[in-house]
Amino acid sequence: MAWVGIFGLSEPGEERDMREEEFIVTPWKVEGKVDYNKLVEKFGTEIISDELLERLIRDAGESSHLLRRRIFFSHRDLDKVLDDWEAGRGFFLYTGRGPSGPMHIGHIIPFYFTKWLQDRFKVNTYIQLTDDEKYLEEGRGLTLEETRKWAKENALDIAAVGFDPDRTFIFQDTEYIRNMYPLALKVARKINFSWVRAVFGFDAQTNIGMSFYPAIQIIPSLFEKRRCLIPCAIDQDPYWRIQRDISESLGFHKAAAIHSKFLPPLMGPTGKMSASDPESAIYLHEGKEDIRRKIWKAYSGGQPTLELHRKLGGNPEIDVAYQWLFYFFEPDDGKLGKIEEDYRSGKLLTGELKLILTEKVLKFLEEHQSRREEARELINLYMYDGELAREMWKKIHE
Amino acid sequence: MAWVGIFGLSEPGEERDMREEEFIVTPWKVEGKVDYNKLVEKFGTEIISDELLERLIRDAGESSHLLRRRIFFSHRDLDKVLDDWEAGRGFFLYTGRGPSGPMHIGHIIPFYFTKWLQDRFKVNTYIQLTDDEKYLEEGRGLTLEETRKWAKENALDIAAVGFDPDRTFIFQDTEYIRNMYPLALKVARKINFSWVRAVFGFDAQTNIGMSFYPAIQIIPSLFEKRRCLIPCAIDQDPYWRIQRDISESLGFHKAAAIHSKFLPPLMGPTGKMSASDPESAIYLHEGKEDIRRKIWKAYSGGQPTLELHRKLGGNPEIDVAYQWLFYFFEPDDGKLGKIEEDYRSGKLLTGELKLILTEKVLKFLEEHQSRREEARELINLYMYDGELAREMWKKIHE
Repeated sequence: MAWVGIFGLSEPGEERDMREEEFIVTPWKVEGKVDYNKLVEKFGTEIISDELLERLIRDAGESSHLLRRRIFFSHRDLDKVLDDWEAGRGFFLYTGRGPSGPMHIGHIIPFYFTKWLQDRFKVNTYIQLTDDEKYLEEGRGLTLEETRKWAKENALDIAAVGFDPDRTFIFQDTEYIRNMYPLALKVARKINFSWVRAVFGFDAQTNIGMSFYPAIQIIPSLFEKRRCLIPCAIDQDPYWRIQRDISESLGFHKAAAIHSKFLPPLMGPTGKMSASDPESAIYLHEGKEDIRRKIWKAYSGGQPTLELHRKLGGNPEIDVAYQWLFYFFEPDDGKLGKIEEDYRSGKLLTGELKLILTEKVLKFLEEHQSRREEARELINLYMYDGELAREMWKKIHE
Repeated sequence: MAWVGIFGLSEPGEERDMREEEFIVTPWKVEGKVDYNKLVEKFGTEIISDELLERLIRDAGESSHLLRRRIFFSHRDLDKVLDDWEAGRGFFLYTGRGPSGPMHIGHIIPFYFTKWLQDRFKVNTYIQLTDDEKYLEEGRGLTLEETRKWAKENALDIAAVGFDPDRTFIFQDTEYIRNMYPLALKVARKINFSWVRAVFGFDAQTNIGMSFYPAIQIIPSLFEKRRCLIPCAIDQDPYWRIQRDISESLGFHKAAAIHSKFLPPLMGPTGKMSASDPESAIYLHEGKEDIRRKIWKAYSGGQPTLELHRKLGGNPEIDVAYQWLFYFFEPDDGKLGKIEEDYRSGKLLTGELKLILTEKVLKFLEEHQSRREEARELINLYMYDGELAREMWKKIHE
């Protein structure tokens, strides 16, 4: 996939002037200040209603701040997924990662949410590592050997999230292709160049591997004859629009999706996202000093002087440290509310707010890195030897 | 492949008026009276010179009527293949079949020539069954299950030709894809839509599988780091033009090719070739009565009445029975010369000429069908268990 996580950062940003109200969201690029309401309208997805949110939380048996705070805010057919689950027909989860380099916090959050869904609903979970796509992507300049290596590296970070080893199958396209190819042909037969040109902006210069690739990303949504729920950043939605147009004619369900917003880059909510700027993200492997420094330099909603801050207060809406706490790092609504109040009132200083986030991020990454080491033992279960993995290696999808 | 054999028949003919001097040759269509000199010029291949022919026959240690009579008439880099062979660097053979239905005589002749090359040079031979492509091909209307089934059926006919089981690997794309996919990605990365549009006439309505497919057909020419010689009908040449433009940048040799003409359909040298007309070809599984009837009805170069024939003689140039003897069924030049002479003089009647061919075809197919039955025991060696096959299943091409 051009699986980017809820942090649009990793995509090479094309230089381009944009007016403030403009924004671009494609599977390969997120630029400008995203208007999520406009995006929902443009993509034809639905905002998760209060009723649907309550129903999801009720069925899950527990709430999640990623839902309550509308980080996962949009969907397709989530109601049908719950219909199926309530009626005992079940469903399955599918998400993925484009292994183009090391993963950062924005990349991993959707996996933690996916694990939360798996834990609550006890469902099979398929995680695709698109080493083929990241090699084929124009302008990225990675060798296939590199994307295959990153697939193995990223798999460890994903394994560190703690999925159920017998209900989770992590696979990379270049290894699992023989099992997917027959069905990918059937999908590809239904998609012409004109369509991928319109949906993804491909043109006559696009290489033929890239034009074919959407067929590969669609396949895992057809791994079972049940409804598939795809937790993903909203930029992935174009793939599911195609999937939904062709899946029923092949005897499968239309994919359902639950879409997240993008975590703002450290440089600020209007800053340009770019892989060429490692300062704009915190990577999962980073050391304590780099983490402290990056957060310290992050875009702030505070006032230019201490006096003004005490007097006017900070603006959490545009403050990256606050936004990161809101998006992921402070799940407790009470604590977050207090932080917001104190920041707005000027009682909490920018530096103090940044230190709160820093402690949270350090703790999270310390634990993540330790689980990543333990995951070296587990990775074979996810990819080859676990109960679901063994079943999947025997299955030819067609 | 749009592997069609030296009989262009199997491609769905688009209805279209053509002036007599017009002809069309693409991997999916052969129409009109082909001017082979023009084709060589258009494709940029070379006519096999007398010197090169002698050298090939000398290296082979034996002549072949398919060479002497210029059925295989054109080439790319055949001289370099012989350089390599003479210097002990060796080479390998690659050909294929698009499994869209039962095979006819036009399809199988190139395989007999390929076997002749293998016998003479003792080289590895790779035979690709393109079940993917025949499914993806627009307008053919075959299911993937059908093309996969035809791949197995056609493999038996190919095995009946008698290749060396330890030097031959017959494979179908949907089964062998995992081993080919990494290299196919590297090839696909170098080909854009604009290029396949120009070479194959694809357009925006072409499905994305078909646009990607040329990358798959190129891979077997890169199976070894030696020069690959591809015996094939000249309509396949567009694939090798692309192969030759990209192979060296990937660290492989440019493919060499030896191209055949098309065996004329039974309805006559200017007749329209069409898969929808089973009367224009003789299938390998056909019974004696059908064979007799079809040859009896074949286009003749004889005169309308016995008297006129005795007086004016027949015209072997346009006589399908004579042409089939010339192309394949009468390897003895002396005997063929006598037949031609007698036919031109009016001594040999059309019916007599047809009976000569009928006996040859009946004998050939009886033997072929018997070897096909025996091949049921051998097919596993070619596809999975033979020396070369075992080696190939272990190898990931990248």
